[in-house]
Amino acid sequence: MTEPEESPQDTEEALNSLLESEADNDQVDQFLDELSASDAARAVSRLDWEAQERLLTRLSPSQAAHLVVELCEVQAAGLLDGLDPSAAAEILHELPGDERVDLLSELPESSAETILEEMSPEDAELSRRLGAYDSDSAGGLMIAELVTYPAGATVGDVVKDLRRQATVYRDYQVQYLYIVDDQSRLVGVLPLRRLLQAEDDTQVDEAMIPDPLTVLDQDTLEELIDFFDRHHFLAVPVVDADGRLVGVVHNEAVNEAEHDRSDDDYRKASGLVREELRSMPLLLRSRRRLSWLSVNIVLNIVAASVIAAYQETLAEAIALAVFLPVISDMSGCSGNQAVAVSMRELSLGLVRTNEKRYVFIKEASVGVINGIMLGAMVAGAAYLWKGNPYLGAVVGLALAINTIIAVIVGGIVPLVLKHWGKDPALAAGPILTTVTDICGFFLVFALASGVLDRL
Amino acid sequence: MTEPEESPQDTEEALNSLLESEADNDQVDQFLDELSASDAARAVSRLDWEAQERLLTRLSPSQAAHLVVELCEVQAAGLLDGLDPSAAAEILHELPGDERVDLLSELPESSAETILEEMSPEDAELSRRLGAYDSDSAGGLMIAELVTYPAGATVGDVVKDLRRQATVYRDYQVQYLYIVDDQSRLVGVLPLRRLLQAEDDTQVDEAMIPDPLTVLDQDTLEELIDFFDRHHFLAVPVVDADGRLVGVVHNEAVNEAEHDRSDDDYRKASGLVREELRSMPLLLRSRRRLSWLSVNIVLNIVAASVIAAYQETLAEAIALAVFLPVISDMSGCSGNQAVAVSMRELSLGLVRTNEKRYVFIKEASVGVINGIMLGAMVAGAAYLWKGNPYLGAVVGLALAINTIIAVIVGGIVPLVLKHWGKDPALAAGPILTTVTDICGFFLVFALASGVLDRL
Repeated sequence: MTEPEESPQDTEEALNSLLESEADNDQVDQFLDELSASDAARAVSRLDWEAQERLLTRLSPSQAAHLVVELCEVQAAGLLDGLDPSAAAEILHELPGDERVDLLSELPESSAETILEEMSPEDAELSRRLGAYDSDSAGGLMIAELVTYPAGATVGDVVKDLRRQATVYRDYQVQYLYIVDDQSRLVGVLPLRRLLQAEDDTQVDEAMIPDPLTVLDQDTLEELIDFFDRHHFLAVPVVDADGRLVGVVHNEAVNEAEHDRSDDDYRKASGLVREELRSMPLLLRSRRRLSWLSVNIVLNIVAASVIAAYQETLAEAIALAVFLPVISDMSGCSGNQAVAVSMRELSLGLVRTNEKRYVFIKEASVGVINGIMLGAMVAGAAYLWKGNPYLGAVVGLALAINTIIAVIVGGIVPLVLKHWGKDPALAAGPILTTVTDICGFFLVFALASGVLDRL
Repeated sequence: MTEPEESPQDTEEALNSLLESEADNDQVDQFLDELSASDAARAVSRLDWEAQERLLTRLSPSQAAHLVVELCEVQAAGLLDGLDPSAAAEILHELPGDERVDLLSELPESSAETILEEMSPEDAELSRRLGAYDSDSAGGLMIAELVTYPAGATVGDVVKDLRRQATVYRDYQVQYLYIVDDQSRLVGVLPLRRLLQAEDDTQVDEAMIPDPLTVLDQDTLEELIDFFDRHHFLAVPVVDADGRLVGVVHNEAVNEAEHDRSDDDYRKASGLVREELRSMPLLLRSRRRLSWLSVNIVLNIVAASVIAAYQETLAEAIALAVFLPVISDMSGCSGNQAVAVSMRELSLGLVRTNEKRYVFIKEASVGVINGIMLGAMVAGAAYLWKGNPYLGAVVGLALAINTIIAVIVGGIVPLVLKHWGKDPALAAGPILTTVTDICGFFLVFALASGVLDRL
């Protein structure tokens, strides 16, 4: 499996010089073909924005489509957005229906509309219909390319037709055939295996699995995850409200959507509101990061105003200033662990948004133990430094109590946010650190006030 | 798809009272059967540890196995560990080979060994053989249950055999047949679709796809991701160094492993060294969280010692103390965004561990813009509060410079850690915040020293 690795710089330079040279488009295409998907994506992303667009326009639509599917959606959409709408429409025409819709949904609405107008009426109609589904619903995750047969056909007819259409169906990865009545309503599913095992003159009605399980086109990702949890199927047919077969959702598409969502959680918890790749233009990247940072700095300054309010206390016991960032940071760490456990249990379905009492009890007990341990450590450090047991007691007790607060807040905030329909990955961190900073600073000064003459 | 939801408390109580009552085991089993996988997992995880074990021993091995696969691995392994080894072996016997190995690998080594000794020699041998593979290698991700035929057979023979063995193969989800020579070496792959389209007297050698692409049992997850990136296959056969067919890796298993890894990244970045569920015993949970927190608090105290060193400067300009936690926290936030982008680009293959210069340039430019913006905000806040332009200039400039340092360090540290074979998800955060705290505190005091009489 291992192949000799070219250094990425070499790949980038080779691609750049190919583009600048008079090399014909076939040569460019062949060069890209020889790279793995990730090498091609990396090489292309290292080109500057205009060179990337020039590259796309030099390839034929089908070659360009081949490249586009290998890029991340966010990058591919950015590139299409920069192209002439009719060129973008031609490239999209080459993609399967579901991928086309995914890319269109990443584009600004006005660009998507302009490109749709350049498409053939059929492509545009299908794209609009699929695009109307929420991207994380069964309709948004399904593929619309199916092989269907009428209920009256015989096994022999079907086998003959499959042989005849071999080339048409080659790209379909057919594993199941779908049997429909004259209203396009699904009446059965016929796995290829069963077809093989049946005699030629059997009617498909008899060989098929009748009344198969289906999902509704409006079903959510959670419902699909639950479905594939209960049933170890590779795929499930999707019907609309009238029972008409509209597509098939593969377990793999559901897994991928779940995967994307947890990738998203990590990204958002780190403060990236929208996806960022380093190949994007500088100002866009900077803006995407700042949107979250500027909310955060305001919250930070609000929390810091607690210190400002106690400035006189601080002046009398300047040693406290050393421990304020430690308490702020450690409470944040402890609380974020609880956030991560809640996010994970929410996504596994092990905790529900209304179970705040359960989370409270579970977190409070961890908080007591870890609060005592961390408090003792910071108290010990303070005592070793200044030889003052009162200083140790103040900062140790403040951290201990604040750890308990932090894990409880951290555990519960994701449940509350999710209950309100807000995105816990994005907001839980800032809310947590603001609350724990305010409480932590306040605790230090409140405890210090009582023994100020001994600090 | 939506079914009436019982509140989780009800489910838990119903299960508890079933267990305490004299209900026979079938009733317990039927109760669990009616729940979805996640409902069952949640209800079981709410029982206390001993009740969970009692539940497992009351079910037949195959019923228990059915429940075990629905739980998270970490929870299932914990339960098996508490059971009598022979009971655990009986339950494991009911699981497919790959799931059995996954669970054994989650157990402490000594428990796994005791359970292996209770297994049948064949089960134990297969488990040891599969267990020897790294869990993220092709050998660790493959399934060993395959349908193979000798190269000499005809399509008619194969179809007849498939019909005869229908019940045996029912659980195999057969889509491809594997054609081997007399040394068990793989010579071809025969998709069911091709079998259907071939005439009965054709030899499988002619119908099959000869010399199919394969992966080696030692190939890594990265190599498999790259393989399925290049080739849109549902599965790929796995061979050992001698070319013998040993299993099949499904694209789905690779996706799931990739998914688990990114779930892991989020968890680790939040400071959970090992997976935690709230159903685990309190002390275990507390210990798992503390292992990371106690390293972190030491690093925090080291960073805070910079403040201690400048205590006298601080006493002369106490207002600086208000901004120290702001600068510490905001630099951490900016740096963590860069960490998340690097982690994502590493996992997408868009950046390699040796491309520090590329990341440096890309991050430094974002850092300059965002540093100026954030510095201006904190400078403005300081000026508004105290009306002192020098205070504003000191804290604003410190945050601006430290933001640039933070994004560069945050962007590069994951590359360096990965290059050294360390886990970036776990270590990048603590390293980043320690470096940025030290630099940030130092910058504040160094800049302040120059204008101390004006603060």
